[in-house]
Amino acid sequence: MAKPHSFKLRTYYEDTDAGGIVYHASYLRFAERARTEWLRALGINQDDLRQTQSLGFVVTSLSVDYHRPARLDDDLEVVTTLVELGRATLKLKQEIYRPDAASGSKLSTLHVTVACVELGVKSGTGRVARLPEALYKQLAG
Amino acid sequence: MAKPHSFKLRTYYEDTDAGGIVYHASYLRFAERARTEWLRALGINQDDLRQTQSLGFVVTSLSVDYHRPARLDDDLEVVTTLVELGRATLKLKQEIYRPDAASGSKLSTLHVTVACVELGVKSGTGRVARLPEALYKQLAG
Amino acid sequence: MAKPHSFKLRTYYEDTDAGGIVYHASYLRFAERARTEWLRALGINQDDLRQTQSLGFVVTSLSVDYHRPARLDDDLEVVTTLVELGRATLKLKQEIYRPDAASGSKLSTLHVTVACVELGVKSGTGRVARLPEALYKQLAG
Amino acid sequence: MAKPHSFKLRTYYEDTDAGGIVYHASYLRFAERARTEWLRALGINQDDLRQTQSLGFVVTSLSVDYHRPARLDDDLEVVTTLVELGRATLKLKQEIYRPDAASGSKLSTLHVTVACVELGVKSGTGRVARLPEALYKQLAG
Repeated sequence: MAKPHSFKLRTYYEDTDAGGIVYHASYLRFAERARTEWLRALGINQDDLRQTQSLGFVVTSLSVDYHRPARLDDDLEVVTTLVELGRATLKLKQEIYRPDAASGSKLSTLHVTVACVELGVKSGTGRVARLPEALYKQLAG
Repeated sequence: MAKPHSFKLRTYYEDTDAGGIVYHASYLRFAERARTEWLRALGINQDDLRQTQSLGFVVTSLSVDYHRPARLDDDLEVVTTLVELGRATLKLKQEIYRPDAASGSKLSTLHVTVACVELGVKSGTGRVARLPEALYKQLAG
Repeated sequence: MAKPHSFKLRTYYEDTDAGGIVYHASYLRFAERARTEWLRALGINQDDLRQTQSLGFVVTSLSVDYHRPARLDDDLEVVTTLVELGRATLKLKQEIYRPDAASGSKLSTLHVTVACVELGVKSGTGRVARLPEALYKQLAG
Repeated sequence: MAKPHSFKLRTYYEDTDAGGIVYHASYLRFAERARTEWLRALGINQDDLRQTQSLGFVVTSLSVDYHRPARLDDDLEVVTTLVELGRATLKLKQEIYRPDAASGSKLSTLHVTVACVELGVKSGTGRVARLPEALYKQLAG
């Protein structure tokens, strides 16, 4: 299967909350950016997929363990690993690190299940769809 | 024209940033909720409009003056006033207040121009469209 | 323990994404609003807690199952149930429903673990703290 | 004064809404990332400023003109120009472009006024403060 993928990002005020640290839902946004870049690195553009084949990926379940908080102005790394590849679903592990030497450590771990769906004419009617063969092969690596 | 409309909301952690106050872009979200509820109070449902007539409203320009910061757990009121009604565009003033006695005051003032657009098959191709006659009349009040 | 708490909200454009449905991370924001209102209904104000006792709640882990998508302009209900009360942590189940008759059903289920922490002078240094006795008793109901 | 600064970013699902394009408030987040990177390029770290001198920048007013919508998966460039430097406030112009050849054009223009404030012990009490001399000189270029 496709090998682990690294994505780097920096945190900004938009990502934080009045507790002084990164807001807990922001990690889901970081993870989604990383999945997008992982797909892109495999040659898969989600907007093309949506516009040409009416297919999209939706998250069907996820879990997050928050080990340590990220802070404002942190440089983070998201490591994305495909752990299970089905005919219509993917299971991924995503680990978020702060790689700098001083405090270098894993901040959070996500497990995310994503399904391929038909994007219906009316929103919210998408049914689960088999991954196109070409796409499946790219993911199988 | 339609008379001023009041919308109430409360702020949560999601709305704040590490500066300890409400993040400056959050006011745009509050203003958009208020416009939606103002339209709804006039009998206009944006999701219906989108799904049945392929029409939507987009913001074409806005300005915000931030007089005082909103904080976590604030009860706010957004007062929306239609100040100009064109054939395809609306100009609105939106004032955000913290109504409680102790610190009651205007926190920010927005001026927002919204245009009616055709929602194209491909995203981002929407052209400005005349407001449907029924809708225009509702807004003209 | 405190009995289940119901919180109602409506979805807006800010909550959705280009897939035409509610963005998967938005459910975490909805759940956090519901926890805040649940605490408030028990007489606990998080901003007071932060400013007077330097205590706050942080999410230490969560999982979400997405059963059905919420859409733009949905009226949703979040039912929050305290399932485990420790000396420094709370475990909650939060279920998100679309209560209208036509499509009434459970949209998603969250399990959230929240810890009480000391808010340090410098952000991100908060250590887990015992719940103040009064607060513990309120939660124990 | 400091010369124009370029910042590049990509749009993701988190930035879009059910209209199929980038949500209008997302541009404020992009502009704020660009201001942060502009300050960083001048050697100014906002988190240091906050933690060592209790100073921060807040937006006191802004305006946005939306010329063309950004879409999912767009590569954007934010060009930030300091247009006025006061003793406590900065005025900036920020232009957002989609630089690719096919549709290369300016998508939006922001004018943003930012003030230096003392971050009070209690949130929301910050008063406007003179820019530290060293910082002023860096900005004066």
